[in-house]
Amino acid sequence: MSSSNKNEKKAVVLSSGGLDSTTAMAIAKNEGFSIYSLSFFYGQRHFFELNAAEKVANFFGVSKHLVLNIGLGKIGGSALTDDIAVPKSRDGEMTTENIPVTYVPARNTIFLSYGLAWAEVLNSSDIYIGVNAIDYSGYPDCRPEYIEAFERMANLATKKGVEGLIKIKIRTPLIYMTKEQIIKKGIELNVDYSLTHSCYDPSLEGIACGRCDSCILRRKGFQEAGLKDPARYLD
Amino acid sequence: MSSSNKNEKKAVVLSSGGLDSTTAMAIAKNEGFSIYSLSFFYGQRHFFELNAAEKVANFFGVSKHLVLNIGLGKIGGSALTDDIAVPKSRDGEMTTENIPVTYVPARNTIFLSYGLAWAEVLNSSDIYIGVNAIDYSGYPDCRPEYIEAFERMANLATKKGVEGLIKIKIRTPLIYMTKEQIIKKGIELNVDYSLTHSCYDPSLEGIACGRCDSCILRRKGFQEAGLKDPARYLD
Repeated sequence: MSSSNKNEKKAVVLSSGGLDSTTAMAIAKNEGFSIYSLSFFYGQRHFFELNAAEKVANFFGVSKHLVLNIGLGKIGGSALTDDIAVPKSRDGEMTTENIPVTYVPARNTIFLSYGLAWAEVLNSSDIYIGVNAIDYSGYPDCRPEYIEAFERMANLATKKGVEGLIKIKIRTPLIYMTKEQIIKKGIELNVDYSLTHSCYDPSLEGIACGRCDSCILRRKGFQEAGLKDPARYLD
Repeated sequence: MSSSNKNEKKAVVLSSGGLDSTTAMAIAKNEGFSIYSLSFFYGQRHFFELNAAEKVANFFGVSKHLVLNIGLGKIGGSALTDDIAVPKSRDGEMTTENIPVTYVPARNTIFLSYGLAWAEVLNSSDIYIGVNAIDYSGYPDCRPEYIEAFERMANLATKKGVEGLIKIKIRTPLIYMTKEQIIKKGIELNVDYSLTHSCYDPSLEGIACGRCDSCILRRKGFQEAGLKDPARYLD
């Protein structure tokens, strides 16, 4: 008996253990893919998200969950990896004209590049990423024009792309959804959001701060969806 | 006294410690850049190249040399990182139609992505990479159309790109040169090629095998340039 199925449709799903990537994973699964979830330790202060990513992987019964230790912290330049304070209570100031210090240089480019490498090894053509250009912090590498440029580059970068064996697609099912719509979609697909972690600056016990961009966007989303957020907050 | 000079032109140079990237570094230095050299431990069997990269960095007096441990080996899929034999004596078979098992999935995409992250942190707009599309193994991520697509993506990916503060340029001074021309250029710029390491499959003491693609291309280059290759070969 072979351990792999020739008709298996494989998707690489970038998983942070947060609300968005978990919803993207639910959508990929619902579309019939077997899931290869990929998480990164990159020196982030909110490494609690890696515990969440593992719980999420178990919840969805993924084919494989890979955590890569990618040494991004040595490059620095972000409040998420350096000794720079995470800004709080920025509600209303999140725009591309006002990119915050939580921005990690080239993060999604690096994450998608690893996703591309794994997709090629797995013979997969679909890479899911939970980026969102509506209720977001204004990071440049969450915008549709960036994703399209990455996809174009990816198809020139790889052996299987050049040989015409696979056409890489960067799947961004959440890109035009509000946080409210994302949460409602996840609930429809039976996502257990109590497993997810969103906060950039949790307590040592992993309790969300409630006031960073990520917490603000998450709480607003649950409120607008008329649902109770299962996360615990300090504030 | 400030440790940084406002007029300093900084370039990130991807450095493998090999002949091509070392020549690219010499060209960047000759063009007036201060050099920030970036090397990767990615599970390659020929990790001797990292010793070479450090010697090369010292030789050029770089402003900073950074070695990142980037966990690419866990993804696998290459003779350079897996337990797959490095092919020998492929002379005459190196074309894009015949990409060898030494191809590492998405390697240059991952390397350039880290280069992009560091460039943004350093306020640098120039990233040098010693890719070559003439005397090469046929890797897709060495071709000009790939590099152009990466550059386009890079300028949509970053905060400073979006804010119009920097325009990233991927510099590929060697891309249309033969190995002979590369070596002659390096000699003209006083490169000490005895510091460099090219072999994919060296002995435990770091002596080159003489028969992998990389050794074949290097030896042919020195021969055609009418120069003695300072590398030691087993075969």
